[in-house]
Amino acid sequence: MFTIAKAKPERGIWASDQPTLSAPGRGMVMVDVIAAGICGTDYHIFAWDQWSAGRIKTPMTIGHEFVGRISAIGEDVTGFEVGERVSAECHIACGQCALCRTGNAHICEKTQIIGVDVPGAFAEQVLVPATNLWKVPDAIPNKHAAVFDPVGNAMHMVSIADVTSKDVLIVGGGPIGLFAAAIAKAHGARTVTLQEPNQSRGAIASSLGLDLVVNPRDPDCVSNILDVTGGRGPNVVLEVSGNGAALNAALDIAAPGSLVALLGIPGGPVSLDLGGKVVMKGISLVGVTGRRMFETWFQVEAFMLKNPDLIDKVVTHVLPAKEFDRGFQLMDDGACGKVVLDFQTSELREVV
Amino acid sequence: MFTIAKAKPERGIWASDQPTLSAPGRGMVMVDVIAAGICGTDYHIFAWDQWSAGRIKTPMTIGHEFVGRISAIGEDVTGFEVGERVSAECHIACGQCALCRTGNAHICEKTQIIGVDVPGAFAEQVLVPATNLWKVPDAIPNKHAAVFDPVGNAMHMVSIADVTSKDVLIVGGGPIGLFAAAIAKAHGARTVTLQEPNQSRGAIASSLGLDLVVNPRDPDCVSNILDVTGGRGPNVVLEVSGNGAALNAALDIAAPGSLVALLGIPGGPVSLDLGGKVVMKGISLVGVTGRRMFETWFQVEAFMLKNPDLIDKVVTHVLPAKEFDRGFQLMDDGACGKVVLDFQTSELREVV
Amino acid sequence: MFTIAKAKPERGIWASDQPTLSAPGRGMVMVDVIAAGICGTDYHIFAWDQWSAGRIKTPMTIGHEFVGRISAIGEDVTGFEVGERVSAECHIACGQCALCRTGNAHICEKTQIIGVDVPGAFAEQVLVPATNLWKVPDAIPNKHAAVFDPVGNAMHMVSIADVTSKDVLIVGGGPIGLFAAAIAKAHGARTVTLQEPNQSRGAIASSLGLDLVVNPRDPDCVSNILDVTGGRGPNVVLEVSGNGAALNAALDIAAPGSLVALLGIPGGPVSLDLGGKVVMKGISLVGVTGRRMFETWFQVEAFMLKNPDLIDKVVTHVLPAKEFDRGFQLMDDGACGKVVLDFQTSELREVV
Amino acid sequence: MFTIAKAKPERGIWASDQPTLSAPGRGMVMVDVIAAGICGTDYHIFAWDQWSAGRIKTPMTIGHEFVGRISAIGEDVTGFEVGERVSAECHIACGQCALCRTGNAHICEKTQIIGVDVPGAFAEQVLVPATNLWKVPDAIPNKHAAVFDPVGNAMHMVSIADVTSKDVLIVGGGPIGLFAAAIAKAHGARTVTLQEPNQSRGAIASSLGLDLVVNPRDPDCVSNILDVTGGRGPNVVLEVSGNGAALNAALDIAAPGSLVALLGIPGGPVSLDLGGKVVMKGISLVGVTGRRMFETWFQVEAFMLKNPDLIDKVVTHVLPAKEFDRGFQLMDDGACGKVVLDFQTSELREVV
Repeated sequence: MFTIAKAKPERGIWASDQPTLSAPGRGMVMVDVIAAGICGTDYHIFAWDQWSAGRIKTPMTIGHEFVGRISAIGEDVTGFEVGERVSAECHIACGQCALCRTGNAHICEKTQIIGVDVPGAFAEQVLVPATNLWKVPDAIPNKHAAVFDPVGNAMHMVSIADVTSKDVLIVGGGPIGLFAAAIAKAHGARTVTLQEPNQSRGAIASSLGLDLVVNPRDPDCVSNILDVTGGRGPNVVLEVSGNGAALNAALDIAAPGSLVALLGIPGGPVSLDLGGKVVMKGISLVGVTGRRMFETWFQVEAFMLKNPDLIDKVVTHVLPAKEFDRGFQLMDDGACGKVVLDFQTSELREVV
Repeated sequence: MFTIAKAKPERGIWASDQPTLSAPGRGMVMVDVIAAGICGTDYHIFAWDQWSAGRIKTPMTIGHEFVGRISAIGEDVTGFEVGERVSAECHIACGQCALCRTGNAHICEKTQIIGVDVPGAFAEQVLVPATNLWKVPDAIPNKHAAVFDPVGNAMHMVSIADVTSKDVLIVGGGPIGLFAAAIAKAHGARTVTLQEPNQSRGAIASSLGLDLVVNPRDPDCVSNILDVTGGRGPNVVLEVSGNGAALNAALDIAAPGSLVALLGIPGGPVSLDLGGKVVMKGISLVGVTGRRMFETWFQVEAFMLKNPDLIDKVVTHVLPAKEFDRGFQLMDDGACGKVVLDFQTSELREVV
Repeated sequence: MFTIAKAKPERGIWASDQPTLSAPGRGMVMVDVIAAGICGTDYHIFAWDQWSAGRIKTPMTIGHEFVGRISAIGEDVTGFEVGERVSAECHIACGQCALCRTGNAHICEKTQIIGVDVPGAFAEQVLVPATNLWKVPDAIPNKHAAVFDPVGNAMHMVSIADVTSKDVLIVGGGPIGLFAAAIAKAHGARTVTLQEPNQSRGAIASSLGLDLVVNPRDPDCVSNILDVTGGRGPNVVLEVSGNGAALNAALDIAAPGSLVALLGIPGGPVSLDLGGKVVMKGISLVGVTGRRMFETWFQVEAFMLKNPDLIDKVVTHVLPAKEFDRGFQLMDDGACGKVVLDFQTSELREVV
Repeated sequence: MFTIAKAKPERGIWASDQPTLSAPGRGMVMVDVIAAGICGTDYHIFAWDQWSAGRIKTPMTIGHEFVGRISAIGEDVTGFEVGERVSAECHIACGQCALCRTGNAHICEKTQIIGVDVPGAFAEQVLVPATNLWKVPDAIPNKHAAVFDPVGNAMHMVSIADVTSKDVLIVGGGPIGLFAAAIAKAHGARTVTLQEPNQSRGAIASSLGLDLVVNPRDPDCVSNILDVTGGRGPNVVLEVSGNGAALNAALDIAAPGSLVALLGIPGGPVSLDLGGKVVMKGISLVGVTGRRMFETWFQVEAFMLKNPDLIDKVVTHVLPAKEFDRGFQLMDDGACGKVVLDFQTSELREVV
């Protein structure tokens, strides 16, 4: 079958023809992939950064955000049928540690990730534990269902930040930032501002009907943010850029008592004026990773059912899977929102 | 009257003979000081660090944590009588900003602080807005009532961290850290560990009956903390040292999902591995300052009524007010817990 | 001046010509009323039910939800100017009790209510403590600003219930229920269902674009609610009808773990199957009264700025103040949403 | 083997000689019971009340709170070894419903209960799903480990009520109420009052060192409760009696804003003045059932490790299992705290 894999330990990502998978074992389900999103993590693996070089054993089929149809079911799986359309949580938590046993499986230290530690969903077939599956309602199209996972990251962050009636500043306009902006708006934020230097992404943000889209390189950036927040500064900051300078700038204007959610991964240590900007302002910096299993999934489904128009604006590209190179290039250029690969196109069939 | 003041803009603190205060204005109350604690802030003013040099207008009577008796009452004050024993919140918040109007007066940006911005309580008399007063129950002795304010800092931090049934690591064994350890124990923490390099302070911590007192210079420090927490690491960290290296070390061993309260003020920027230690571990860094008005005061009163033995162990010195130099020296040496100055000794009367 | 007052202790409400008010005292502000909403409480006073007969001292000018312009300012008031447009919190809390000192002034037991215990806003002028005022942004029209208070009741209830991503059932379609439905929708509820037997009110609810409007007399009522909630039943119930039978019916279909907010005041004791429907289902019944001072006001302002269309649909009538009889009749008939009285019409001037 | 069973559908409970169990199936574990507590639920089954008559299929071995040693392990169980000492959560939740998937398995509607729906622990052997097991630390004696489950009920209730620094009133002095009192004290309640008419139970409560133990039949009961709470009334009520009159009396004196946890199951509907005592006082009635899986278990373990003295006082009787009749009689008389049955006594061996 056609797969997209990290074939060797160097920059790049390659198509690979692999044997079809054997039948799912106990508790497992086989899913025929319909479509899959390209995640920032996939891009890190492509670029072979320090994190991915330290973790991935090549060759590895990548990809972990997807929708598909169940094609086979292992022993002891109940509640699912062949043919059902599903997405899946990509974190396979251990289920036995203190974190898993107290509702915090999303930060389990023994987690295996689909497409990172076990073969992924950039393939015609993928094997997933039944307990990780999420049934997709008919009303949600494949293009949206493929991105349950990253919308889940954004949802987890927005939910922690409790944005309703708040002035929200989103630092970074990649797919997670854009989804977060859409969710913050749908959850009744007082105002939503998105800050992003890339003009293509800024344009997508503008299409979402936010209160303000700012470019950090614009000299009026700060005064514009203060204006839209009634002079008080934002009281929720969602940091998805991983940029230390941007975080420091956001802490400068954040109102005392703000919640600052951190989801972006900086490339190295970040220097912070903890005394003046965090302690004395009573600010909280909250690290956010993954998605709550499965509270976040219920929240994402509710959001998707109500706001298909907003998701449509963030999923800017659906490409045939064989054109994955173009997808990674779009991400490299910042010339896209979320890119989804279609694994059911006839072109793909020909390739395979 | 006898006062202790920052008389001139240089290192030091001096006794000063001042005229007695005029009658309290509208909404104000005059309090004859019985006893007052020396705060770390007073020590910063003594040392004339960057913060105090930028904020204090000399001459200024310092001191803000105290107990006394009401000696005069201004117009429009209701609910208080001359002779009542009171302590007081030292933050005089503006009352009109968005933070004050939503229960967050402790982080009001227009706050004036007694003993910093207006004349303080290291004096025989001090003027305080009636709305800042706290009536002291008879069962609480002066030695304890004088430190409502710093116990309040510790209580605010411990309350935010929600320590019950948790493994708590306190980084720093000054008075706030010691009070926090006592409160964490009284609030049903699973284990309480205090980390402190100074042996005098470590000895005070040991007297509180904690689960573990560790010296960060001890090579077994980390393994001892892991042992006491069942190998999981602490899931609450209370950082009161202001030491960046200690914070980084604590983040290394903190369990995923931990709450890390930051109360200590570092001397400068702190470099943090936000990606690996905060984002990917789902950790929260929560800045804590001041005390909630007046929820924290109710909590402190409840704690003081139940745990006089613990407070006694942390308030290691009660000195005649005229011996304030010795008090500051004890703090300089780390040879004390909390130091309280007694403004009612006959020696003081003689001096004045 | 023209006022609407409870002139005598019997059913009814009457116009009354009163002397203009004397200048505001210390801390007080005089407001020239522009418009005022008729509250359910006003209707109870009109009907002279047990509660109002036990509390109101006649004669009493009633009315407490309003917008106006400041016409005079007493001593020691800062931050306000003559001519500013304001609404006001109608609860004058004591400010000194444990509840007031811990951010719970809305349930202070010594509260005095404008238009109940002190002269109200169904008048050309009303006196209000400055600390109760709320400045109205220019973008909010008088018709909306007049109902800050009841939108605040609804907002307080919806905020406590944390409706985002939840299936919300609102029991009762009077003004508070309708406002609550609008807010729940704006805050990202998964679905919003409103249950109301009165067809006029049901029609208003339908105009809000809710997921479902049901009549409890319809035999399909329960099955329709279950359908819209995916078979699980609502997990948030907002009870504003005060009808015990409706509450019991809602508890039957509420999902385990639901939050049931109670705002409606039943006419007498209500019999509940606490064991089967509350304890064993892990359900919470949360009494809601008033509005948080002033967190709720910030939330209402944010909602009003974003959703003028929804408020317009609930405020169905603006009548000249002299036609107050017609307003009370509309409420008696359930033939309205919120009714607002206009105190600035030329007709009113003629009357006076 | 020796078991205690509901042999026939009528009042009573009987010893029964049963074949030893066959080997545990996939995911299951066999536990040799060391000791088991008699729960109020066991007493209801003994008395054959409406609930038990509607649910239990006779014959059924009862008992669900226990400690034992693993004697056999089924396929696909990891993390456990023969010989380990364990207790177990008695609720076998479905794992697939929305509640189970969002951390609320304790209110799963498809739960099966050990000793109610499947054979229980009043037996020499019991079969339990591995996912329900809890490893018991060596420092916790069998007498305590046998009651992890009911201490868990109490802990769940106390945790929801967030008792630290609060004035807590516990209505009912059965084992759950006594455990709750001990936990509230250990978690730093400002004051703990226990109300109980039975003098034996009152004496046990008194031994715990609470602030007040009151008899509701004492005419000074209310004034004593008000005195100990500084005149404000309790702001946390833990209702474990299931007595409607006692609940109404508690609502009368509870402070506005109180949290009232309901764990006791009334025998029928309860009439409540919701308007005056719940809505207008802003009080919350929170139904509590079961224990959170497994957050509550971590909390109970932490409590047990720190407070063995308090648990010793509540576990008043350890009887040989064959004397179960005496245990049920003690409960009938209210002449005990918690009664534990010892399944390892030589007498038991003889009987069998």
